[in-house]
Amino acid sequence: MSVLVVGSVALDTIKTPLGECCRVLGGSATYSSVSASFFSGVNLVAVVGGDFPKEHIDLLKKRDVCLKGLDIKQDGKTFSWEGEYSKDFSDPKTIATHLNVFSEFNPKIPREYKNAEYLFLANIDPVIQKAVLNQIEKPKLVVCDTMNYWIENKRQDLIDLLKNIDVFLLNESEARQLSGETVIIKAARAITKMGPKKIIIKKGEHGSIFFSDGSVFCVPAYLLESVFDPTGAGDTFAGGFIGYLAKNDKIDDETIRKAIVYGSIMATFAVEDFSLRKLGNINEADISRRFEKFKSATCF
Amino acid sequence: MSVLVVGSVALDTIKTPLGECCRVLGGSATYSSVSASFFSGVNLVAVVGGDFPKEHIDLLKKRDVCLKGLDIKQDGKTFSWEGEYSKDFSDPKTIATHLNVFSEFNPKIPREYKNAEYLFLANIDPVIQKAVLNQIEKPKLVVCDTMNYWIENKRQDLIDLLKNIDVFLLNESEARQLSGETVIIKAARAITKMGPKKIIIKKGEHGSIFFSDGSVFCVPAYLLESVFDPTGAGDTFAGGFIGYLAKNDKIDDETIRKAIVYGSIMATFAVEDFSLRKLGNINEADISRRFEKFKSATCF
Repeated sequence: MSVLVVGSVALDTIKTPLGECCRVLGGSATYSSVSASFFSGVNLVAVVGGDFPKEHIDLLKKRDVCLKGLDIKQDGKTFSWEGEYSKDFSDPKTIATHLNVFSEFNPKIPREYKNAEYLFLANIDPVIQKAVLNQIEKPKLVVCDTMNYWIENKRQDLIDLLKNIDVFLLNESEARQLSGETVIIKAARAITKMGPKKIIIKKGEHGSIFFSDGSVFCVPAYLLESVFDPTGAGDTFAGGFIGYLAKNDKIDDETIRKAIVYGSIMATFAVEDFSLRKLGNINEADISRRFEKFKSATCF
Repeated sequence: MSVLVVGSVALDTIKTPLGECCRVLGGSATYSSVSASFFSGVNLVAVVGGDFPKEHIDLLKKRDVCLKGLDIKQDGKTFSWEGEYSKDFSDPKTIATHLNVFSEFNPKIPREYKNAEYLFLANIDPVIQKAVLNQIEKPKLVVCDTMNYWIENKRQDLIDLLKNIDVFLLNESEARQLSGETVIIKAARAITKMGPKKIIIKKGEHGSIFFSDGSVFCVPAYLLESVFDPTGAGDTFAGGFIGYLAKNDKIDDETIRKAIVYGSIMATFAVEDFSLRKLGNINEADISRRFEKFKSATCF
């Protein structure tokens, strides 16, 4: 099975305590597409400008990401984001956001993608996410990500969207923000009532928690020697997660648990270098090795 | 096998966002003794004053904790601590500490305890911890806890002590404080070089990490509906941990992993009410149920 990914493709300028980079490949759909591509076919729907470097297209092609849905607006500029991380690598400070061609992103899903069974609505405006969802005929699984900005500024649109989401991904502070609950298990329960039967709360270096019909799966994070740049970690997690499910074409809780572990392992590659420099250059054996190592580091 | 526990027995006055209590049973050795008592025999060495309520003695007796080493100074007052937790239940603010009889605590290990094989040096001054260790003939396993105060004020004494410790317990910020390393895996490596071959880094609601000769065990925390009072959680963890090892009389990594899970489960009971109100009133079936629930919430 293939995964349909809709979200942002961006050029990022990032400063972390360990270094900086300028106008490198980024965006929620980029990280998640490349991550998913290690497990399944990927169809990408996004928009870029005429300034989007050919080498980035080449990377996506190398990963066999289908680019029929990548709208290249020759006379426009690619969405760009500039951010800075403090010493503890927590939420970055946004220095500048230039929406550029992204400001009029109104995705038309190519006809051949409309029967997609695995859909990932990467982090973008929930109004656009809903417009995408409405174009998909009969998805088997809809996974959706978001961010604090939309919870704050498009709360009702997000809540409307959630009614039709199967698996909702958000981080701890977003879960608290959306639900108004401090205790994470209560937050998850409140969000479940908004629609999604399954929720994954991402806790970064502390792992993640999966809530499903009253059952819970808690998993720690893979321990890393160093984090270089956390940008895209959540998107990469999501891509590995849905890619693994599509590969197995199963969405039972047992498969979802493994998908979460694969998602979190994919994220470790993303954070070990800027942009997709590492993630774009690993192979299946690298992933398997980390999975086995993780398994032996968590069993008791 | 029995566990020898040396540490503080205290009367705590605590305020949390959910309530408050006055002069209730507390202390590092109290929590760890009661926790260990669900797995093995426990011999307690500590000091209290003439004001120490009989009901607390009764609780320890009910849990079959041997009190031959509990020095009751009839003309003195019991060590008392007053603390307040903020909304997020992180490190409490100390309002008052009255050392009382504890200020002259110079534990004499009863003759029949000197051949103890499982020794837990609960959180007290590392100088006292060392004086205790020197009285034990040939321990099979020495587990040691500490706190930020000793790292800051008795650093060299602590480092001297660590040379003779088998398993060292500390939390994330203490690990960073002691090692000077920000990344937790590097902090653990640095602390290993100080002596202890095995280190457990406690992360509270995010679980714990066990480092041993290059191998790593990461475990999330058991998810709770509500935390009422985190006081004693680390001590309770330690008690369950060493109690389980003593019960099985094994200290290989596989047994240690299970001991960590049991320790963290014991801690969940401690935090669900003030003092030992819950921890002192559970039974083996409660522990088994949580262990099984935890196992099913973490397997993949």
